[in-house]
Amino acid sequence: MLSLDAIRIVMIETSLSANIGSAARAMKTMGLSQLFLVNPVEVLSQEAYARSSGARNILESATVVSSLDEAIGDCSLVVGASARSRSLPWPLINPRQAAEKVIGQPQDQTVAILFGRESSGLSNEELARCQYHVHIPANPDYSSLNIAAAIQVIGYELRMAALADEAEYQWADIRENPPADQQSLEGYFQHLEQALVDIGYLDPNNPKQLMPRLRRLYLRSEPDQAEINILRGILKQTLIAAGK
Amino acid sequence: MLSLDAIRIVMIETSLSANIGSAARAMKTMGLSQLFLVNPVEVLSQEAYARSSGARNILESATVVSSLDEAIGDCSLVVGASARSRSLPWPLINPRQAAEKVIGQPQDQTVAILFGRESSGLSNEELARCQYHVHIPANPDYSSLNIAAAIQVIGYELRMAALADEAEYQWADIRENPPADQQSLEGYFQHLEQALVDIGYLDPNNPKQLMPRLRRLYLRSEPDQAEINILRGILKQTLIAAGK
Repeated sequence: MLSLDAIRIVMIETSLSANIGSAARAMKTMGLSQLFLVNPVEVLSQEAYARSSGARNILESATVVSSLDEAIGDCSLVVGASARSRSLPWPLINPRQAAEKVIGQPQDQTVAILFGRESSGLSNEELARCQYHVHIPANPDYSSLNIAAAIQVIGYELRMAALADEAEYQWADIRENPPADQQSLEGYFQHLEQALVDIGYLDPNNPKQLMPRLRRLYLRSEPDQAEINILRGILKQTLIAAGK
Repeated sequence: MLSLDAIRIVMIETSLSANIGSAARAMKTMGLSQLFLVNPVEVLSQEAYARSSGARNILESATVVSSLDEAIGDCSLVVGASARSRSLPWPLINPRQAAEKVIGQPQDQTVAILFGRESSGLSNEELARCQYHVHIPANPDYSSLNIAAAIQVIGYELRMAALADEAEYQWADIRENPPADQQSLEGYFQHLEQALVDIGYLDPNNPKQLMPRLRRLYLRSEPDQAEINILRGILKQTLIAAGK
């Protein structure tokens, strides 16, 4: 079972630092402590500190990075908050299901939950980095939760799951090895994409939805490092056999 | 079953109208519409309207009263949000339990949920008017949720309870297509095994555990037929590129 301290809240290109302050407060009330800011548009302001109230320490210890990779490279599970359905369907779960999956991770893992821009959410490319999309089942006539309110709701479900009897979490899938981290998965996907171009299966000028489809397929199986090593070994041998 | 429209959110002596605006937004995102304000300290300001975002109509239709009796006199169930345990023990439930009780009311009833002052919550006299006290299980080291954030969490649980029976929120993972059948999967695995032999990755005289490992990986993701077609297309092109 994962501890709340091992959960990283990642806010991407947040445009109002007041929202970062409110998010810090929401996090601390639910026992979350790791805040990552990817390219915040506005730096931390007085307003952010005012809104954070008693959670000033969360703001002061926040990690500011300039790319998503820096925020999630070492994470074994990445969940993206998604306001709406996209053209490419992805495993979509509600906050309660997301909390069960997150808290059910082995205790030495790190998990990231991504929150996108106030105006436009996460990009399709960012959403494709996630194993799951979490959707708060809001009013279809007005589904625009403030970003800190969304963090409050998801933080609440994480806390509820963490407080549940530990015995409930014995069902967690028994696996030989923990899932591979994001850096390893991305290394595989880059290798795969290049190999598909080299053997003439993927046309880089007309890639269509091939890579998102393959990403979705492999992410669903949550490969471990030994499996990634096999998949990359196959790619390497494929290129040797093809004389590339 | 009670409809979300029959639930009254009652804010007592709220001191900052910005919080009333944020509360209106939180309510509307969760499908709540009835806002009662008992002696708000600050009248509705520009800041309240700004914070309400697309929920301006909730603010404009809010009922302002000068006593708690006017707000809850006709309600069959009254639940009070309580931040901490009191000297007088009272039935204390969490937001999920509260939502079950509220949504489980007969449909012609009206229910009120009371939220107290930002600084001091509900008075003992107000708490004594409630059948139940609802407590958000916050971090004991810092339990101070913003009042709109508390309304967001409780509104979320009310909405989850209201949606529970509705078919539109079957949260099984959304998939475009059903998983491929066994025949199709076995066809892929045979194709994969032969291709791995042909490119020189799998030694048929010393296969080790390679195929069982790959089977386990792919079976875990439950590929659909379109995905099997992509995987077989890659194998076919691999063999062409390798001159096999």
